[in-house]
Amino acid sequence: MIASTPIQIERTTTPKPKPPQDKLGFGIYFTDHMFIMNYTAEFGWHRSRIVPYQPITLDPAAKVFHYGQTVFEGLKAYKTADGRVQLFRPDANMKRMNRSNDRMSMPPIPTELALEAIKGLAKIDQDWIPDGEGNSLYIRPFVIATEALLGVQPSLEYQFIVIMSPVGAYYPEGINPVKIFVESHYVRAMVGGVGEAKTAGNYAAGLKAQDAAKDQGYTQVLWLDGAEHKYIEEVGSMNVFFKIDGTVYTPALNGSILDGITRNSVIRLLKHWNVPVVERVLSIEEIYEAGKNGKLEESFGTGTAAVISPVGELNWRGEKLIINGGKTGQLSEKIYNDLTGIQYGKLEDPFGWMIEVH
Amino acid sequence: MIASTPIQIERTTTPKPKPPQDKLGFGIYFTDHMFIMNYTAEFGWHRSRIVPYQPITLDPAAKVFHYGQTVFEGLKAYKTADGRVQLFRPDANMKRMNRSNDRMSMPPIPTELALEAIKGLAKIDQDWIPDGEGNSLYIRPFVIATEALLGVQPSLEYQFIVIMSPVGAYYPEGINPVKIFVESHYVRAMVGGVGEAKTAGNYAAGLKAQDAAKDQGYTQVLWLDGAEHKYIEEVGSMNVFFKIDGTVYTPALNGSILDGITRNSVIRLLKHWNVPVVERVLSIEEIYEAGKNGKLEESFGTGTAAVISPVGELNWRGEKLIINGGKTGQLSEKIYNDLTGIQYGKLEDPFGWMIEVH
Ligand SMILES: Cc1ncc(COP(=O)(O)O)c(C=O)c1O
Ligand SMILES: Cc1ncc(COP(=O)(O)O)c(C=O)c1O
Repeated sequence: MIASTPIQIERTTTPKPKPPQDKLGFGIYFTDHMFIMNYTAEFGWHRSRIVPYQPITLDPAAKVFHYGQTVFEGLKAYKTADGRVQLFRPDANMKRMNRSNDRMSMPPIPTELALEAIKGLAKIDQDWIPDGEGNSLYIRPFVIATEALLGVQPSLEYQFIVIMSPVGAYYPEGINPVKIFVESHYVRAMVGGVGEAKTAGNYAAGLKAQDAAKDQGYTQVLWLDGAEHKYIEEVGSMNVFFKIDGTVYTPALNGSILDGITRNSVIRLLKHWNVPVVERVLSIEEIYEAGKNGKLEESFGTGTAAVISPVGELNWRGEKLIINGGKTGQLSEKIYNDLTGIQYGKLEDPFGWMIEVH
Repeated sequence: MIASTPIQIERTTTPKPKPPQDKLGFGIYFTDHMFIMNYTAEFGWHRSRIVPYQPITLDPAAKVFHYGQTVFEGLKAYKTADGRVQLFRPDANMKRMNRSNDRMSMPPIPTELALEAIKGLAKIDQDWIPDGEGNSLYIRPFVIATEALLGVQPSLEYQFIVIMSPVGAYYPEGINPVKIFVESHYVRAMVGGVGEAKTAGNYAAGLKAQDAAKDQGYTQVLWLDGAEHKYIEEVGSMNVFFKIDGTVYTPALNGSILDGITRNSVIRLLKHWNVPVVERVLSIEEIYEAGKNGKLEESFGTGTAAVISPVGELNWRGEKLIINGGKTGQLSEKIYNDLTGIQYGKLEDPFGWMIEVH
């Protein structure tokens, strides 16, 4: 391990023009720099450096192309009204990255080192953090297996790379409920599999169902468990919550869903407000029953990209369930306002979630 | 689609030395050339070319690194005693590749075009096909998503690449039984998932269990179904067969296992020989029962790499089952000899499996 050497910095000599604020979208534009660090079995993580954003060159036999050993993370940097730059819970992302690395038989990355990389990069490209309500800088750390060998064994070489993309508000006109298709045929993950790891293959596995849902006018898919197609897992790239008769429910972490950092933050906020919140196995049937009995008050998804995404309609085996008249619920709205308030430095941060970049 | 243009060929000016025959291993050395073809939503598959084996250069936001849209194949070219070069059922591989492409929301590749690519490449590098009992040229076609965009949707750009590696006999001293660990904790795939697609994520998902099995002295893992951990699926990168009381059984294709081309060939050989062969749901329990009753005569895995791999021992929840005294069974041996006989052109090919490269 010679990982404690300082980060080498090579600045770009040809900075790119910034994209127009109203055209940002998600993950389309990338900043001027990126972070890279190499791993070999012999040297551990080494050669940590910030370089101009540029293509990467790999042997066509690199294991990432063949056996999918890869892990990624997603977090955001926000600019406050007084011009400070702050990250939302980056330590939580780096811890999760190492849990994913472990599941995928990939080497851990010292958390401090990874945080330093992210902070260093966010600092050098801080001009890229867009102003404006709901805009932010999306940070994508990822690890890929680079050894050029076709045997099916863990790679002995990796690269850890961080790229960043200025992103727009997920809902430019404020948060708006989405329609979600409850998937009864395709399965994303199951207990004993890699569902709780943030690894590339989980996302490729979901595309087909997602496309079918889109064709029917639904934004995303709500996954059910792989064994019985009865229990609620998560939505595309969000965890999911239901408010029933005053109590908020979300599926317990069972090994097949992602331990979302927004999910965790929402649970902590709710507890802080003394709103009852329960993590347990949740069947789709009981949600529909609560809906029919008039006890299902709200539903929302949670994730870094949208923060809070109210669910206005579910469709399970052709049966539609309209939630809260298809409107954003009060609690969803309040959580959204508080979380984003903390993220943009407009509200106090009682949990110590925000990490300032100096 | 401007895919029907001829393959452009750029020959290497610096051919590599060939590796020594006794050091080949699997997927370690690569030949002098590779095939590449690009896909864009606008032009379809285009720019098909054979170039010197070289690194590929991709944007760090390329979707393959983040969302794992990738598909691969594996097949072999053999050199006959009289110097002819022949491929084993390449059409079956290309058809399976397109089934995988479909499952992963990736565009199909015209089968003829893909076959032409493989034949062209095998021809130009035919000197790389090693002589010697059991040696062959392993061919690895693969497709990767290359669009630089972080939205979770199917990529609009891909590359289809073929690389080749001279490989040694899997068992240099003839086929030898392996010890297999029956996995009861980890799960590889389930019905409704992507288990039947030959996609990278499936292999990364299996590494952890494989490593644990190796630590206990087992060569590979036998996967059970994801829902109940009761039914036999497949072994690492092989399908699996059991001979019980004169009849040969193999798990039916259920959507969560790979439709192996060696599996299919073995079934056809057995039928040709009038050996009863049954594809159905198989529980691990009944295999153990047959073992205890003395009715389990043989077991073997099938796959392109090893062709036939006899199973000498299973370990299920700590209970060991020795099969055929830990020795290679007669039927396993006969299948191995016949299949490899056809592949190396020593035996007649009644099925029209071998495709000669001119
Ligand atoms: C599958 C999945 N579930 C849930 C989430 C939400 O996690 P987080 O709140 O950490 O962004 C994500 C990602 O962002 C995800 O990819
Ligand atoms: C998961 C899996 N099962 C089975 C097989 C055997 O398939 P084939 O006989 O086509 O090589 C392979 C691959 O080679 C595989 O990767």
